[in-house]
Amino acid sequence: MTIAPADAPEPKTLASGEIHPTKMIHSFVIQLPVMKSTSPKSYNFDHAAATPLDPAVLEAMLPYLQHDFANPSSLYGAARHARQALESARRSVAGTLGAKPTEIIFTSGTTEGDNLAIQGVLRKWPGARWAATAIEHDAVLGNKPDAIISVKPNGIVDVQAVDSAVTDNTVLVSVMMANNEIGTIQPIADIAKHLAAIRADRVKRGITAPLYLHTDAAQAAGYLDLHVTRPGVDLLTLGGSKLYGPKGSGVLYVRHGTALEPLHYGGGQERGRRSGTENVAAAVGFAKALELAATRRTAESHRLAILRDDLIARLTKALPGSALNGDPKRRLPNNINLTIPGADGEAMVLYLDQVGIQASTGSACTIGSLEPSHVLLALGRTVDEANTSLRLTLGRSTTQAAVDHVVEALPPIVARLGDIDTHN
Amino acid sequence: MTIAPADAPEPKTLASGEIHPTKMIHSFVIQLPVMKSTSPKSYNFDHAAATPLDPAVLEAMLPYLQHDFANPSSLYGAARHARQALESARRSVAGTLGAKPTEIIFTSGTTEGDNLAIQGVLRKWPGARWAATAIEHDAVLGNKPDAIISVKPNGIVDVQAVDSAVTDNTVLVSVMMANNEIGTIQPIADIAKHLAAIRADRVKRGITAPLYLHTDAAQAAGYLDLHVTRPGVDLLTLGGSKLYGPKGSGVLYVRHGTALEPLHYGGGQERGRRSGTENVAAAVGFAKALELAATRRTAESHRLAILRDDLIARLTKALPGSALNGDPKRRLPNNINLTIPGADGEAMVLYLDQVGIQASTGSACTIGSLEPSHVLLALGRTVDEANTSLRLTLGRSTTQAAVDHVVEALPPIVARLGDIDTHN
Repeated sequence: MTIAPADAPEPKTLASGEIHPTKMIHSFVIQLPVMKSTSPKSYNFDHAAATPLDPAVLEAMLPYLQHDFANPSSLYGAARHARQALESARRSVAGTLGAKPTEIIFTSGTTEGDNLAIQGVLRKWPGARWAATAIEHDAVLGNKPDAIISVKPNGIVDVQAVDSAVTDNTVLVSVMMANNEIGTIQPIADIAKHLAAIRADRVKRGITAPLYLHTDAAQAAGYLDLHVTRPGVDLLTLGGSKLYGPKGSGVLYVRHGTALEPLHYGGGQERGRRSGTENVAAAVGFAKALELAATRRTAESHRLAILRDDLIARLTKALPGSALNGDPKRRLPNNINLTIPGADGEAMVLYLDQVGIQASTGSACTIGSLEPSHVLLALGRTVDEANTSLRLTLGRSTTQAAVDHVVEALPPIVARLGDIDTHN
Repeated sequence: MTIAPADAPEPKTLASGEIHPTKMIHSFVIQLPVMKSTSPKSYNFDHAAATPLDPAVLEAMLPYLQHDFANPSSLYGAARHARQALESARRSVAGTLGAKPTEIIFTSGTTEGDNLAIQGVLRKWPGARWAATAIEHDAVLGNKPDAIISVKPNGIVDVQAVDSAVTDNTVLVSVMMANNEIGTIQPIADIAKHLAAIRADRVKRGITAPLYLHTDAAQAAGYLDLHVTRPGVDLLTLGGSKLYGPKGSGVLYVRHGTALEPLHYGGGQERGRRSGTENVAAAVGFAKALELAATRRTAESHRLAILRDDLIARLTKALPGSALNGDPKRRLPNNINLTIPGADGEAMVLYLDQVGIQASTGSACTIGSLEPSHVLLALGRTVDEANTSLRLTLGRSTTQAAVDHVVEALPPIVARLGDIDTHN
C-alpha cells in the first residue's frame, strides 16, 4: 500500500500569513483623516461577537476556580462535591431546554458543539449525506454539507427547499435558530414537521436511516424559547460567550436515541461522548448564564426590540439608499444589519471605534478572511453591497442614549467615507 | 447507494448506565466499619488528577473574565487589546518550549490536544498507520493505534520495539513524556533519534511520507525540560489542569511544516487549525501557569523527589509485600504507585479520604471504567495486582508533615482491608 496526503484544501484564513489582517486594515486606515473623538465612553454594539461575563456568573464560577478544584472523576469527597456541582449545572441546563440531564453534553463552545453534532452523526453513518442552509455559521459550513438549502431574499429558509436538499441517504439537516449576521429567525418547528413527514414516508418505504435536525442556537439563546421538544429538534448547540457566560463553555443537546460518535476520545467523560477533564467552573458558569438569560428573555427582548426599531428607522432615514438586511420582523430583537451604499464596512467599524462605538461588518470569526459575507451574498446582495454593510448588535448595556449616539455619529462617518475611494 | 451505521464499538464507559460508579462504590463502602477520622486537615496526594489554580494565575485571568471581554477577532481597539493579550500569551508559551509563536495552538485541554495531534495528522494522510506505546493515556489510545509499542517491566519504552511498530506507511508515533499513573519518564530524545534514522532510510528509498513524533507532556510539564528542539518532537500536548492552571486550557505545539487538518472547522482561528472564539482568559492563565512552572521546576523537582523517596522507603518497609510500580529513578519527582497485596485500591482511596488524604487508584479519567489499569497490566502486573494498587502524587502543597501523615495512616487501613473480602 502506498499512502498519499489528503487533498483537502488548505484552511482559507491566515494559514501561512504572518500579519493579522486587522493590522493591515489599521495601517490602511491611519492614512485617512482622523476624526475628532466626541466621547470617551464606550458603547458596545457588537454583542453578537462577545458579551461581557455577568458578575453573577463569575461569582458562581469563582469557588471552582479557587478551592473546589478536584477532578470530578476522582473517588474522594472533594471530587464528589465537584461532580455534584457539575451535575447540578447539567440539571439546570436540562430544565431550561426541557431536556433530560443525560441529553446534555458540556463542550468548550459553539464551534465544538456544531462540529461534534455534525461529525459525530456522520461518523456513525459513513457515506451518508447531510444538508445545511446557505447562511449557517462557518462552524457548520466548514464541515462541507453535501447539499445547501437556499434562503429567501429576506433571509428566511425556504421550507420547500428542504425537499430538494434531502435524499434517502440524508441523515442530518442543520438549520440555525437565528442568524449571527442578520438575526433572521428560522421556522424551526415548520422544518421539523417537514422532516417528520419525510421520516414517516421513509419508514413506509422500509428505509431505517435517521434524519436528524440540528440547530445552532448560539445567537438565539438570549431571546428565543429554547425548549427542544416544542419544535422537535434532535441536536441543539449553545455557547456561553454570546450569553454573558464564560468563553470556552457550551452545551450540545443530544436527544436520547441519537447515535453520536465522539470527536475527542479518552477518559470517557460526558457519558463517553466528550472526553477530557470536566471544566466544572465553565459548566457552572454556563448554567448560571443560561438561567439568567431565560429569566430575563421576555422583558429584555421587548426592551431591545423597541431600541432596535428606533435605531433602524432613524438610520435608514438619515442614510439615503441604506437598506436593512434580513426580515424586519422575523429577526432577533438585538440585530441590525444595514447595507449603506458607498461606505466601506471595515472603515465604518474603525471610524465608529474612534467615537466609542464597537460594531462589526458581520461575523467576527470570518473577519480575517477578507471575503464578502456569504450570508449577505445568499440573500442576493452583490459583493459591493456586502462590503458596504454594517452590523449593530444590541445587548444588556444598550440604552436609548447609546442608540442616540449611534444616530448622531454614523451619518457624518458615512458622508466622509462617500468622499474617499476606500478601494484604491 | 444504501447507507449503514458505522460498526464502531460503543464507548466503553457509562454509555447507557444512569448511576455514576462512584456512587455504587460509595454505597458499597459505607457497609464497611467506619474508621475514626484523625485529622480535619486535607492532604492532597492526587496532584496528577487535578491541581489547584495558582492564585497568581487567577489574578492574571481576571481582567479577561471581567472588563476585557472583546472577541479578539473583531476590528476595534478593545478587540485588538484582547488579541494582544492572546498573542503575548502565545509568545510566552513559545518561549518556554523553545518554539515559534506560530507553532502554538491554544486548545481546551490535554484530551483535545492529543486528539487534534493524532486525528489531525491522520486526516492529512488517509489510510496511513500510526503507533503508540502500551501505556499512553486513553486520550491517545482511544484513537486506536495500528501498532502498540511495548514497555519494559519498569515502565520504560523499549526503544528497539519502535522498529517493529513502524512500517513504511507509519506517519505518526505517540510516546508520552511521562506516564500519568506510574510517572515513568520516557527516553524521548532517543526515540526521536531512532525515528530520524528511519526517516533518513526512507528518504534513501524514495519514500516521502512523514514520520512525526507526538508526545503528551501533560504530566511532565511541571517537572521536566519541555524544550521541543532538544529531543526533536513534532507535536507536543500540554494541559492547564495538571499545571496549577485553568481547567479547559491547553496547548498543542505543532512544528512548522507538520501537516495538520483541524478537528473543529469554523471561523479559522488559531491559523485555521482550531476554530472557535478564542478563550483569552484561559490562554493567559495557561501561559502564566507554564511560566511559573518553568521558574519553579528545578527547585520543586528536587524538593519533591526527597519527599517521594522518603515516602516510598517508609511505606514499602511498613507494608510487607508491597512493591513500587515503575522505575524507581526514571520517574516524575511527584509520583508514587504501589501494589499492596490484599488491599483493594478503591477501598484504600475511600478510607484514606476519611482521614483527609486524597489519593487515587490510577488515572482519574478511567475510574468510571471499573477495569484494571491498562498501564499496570502492560508492566506485567496481574489483574489482582493492578486492582490492589494505589497512586500517591505529590505537589506544591505537599510537606514533610503530609508525608508523615500518610505513613501513619495507610498501614492500619491496609491491615483492616486485609481482613475483609472486598470482592464478595
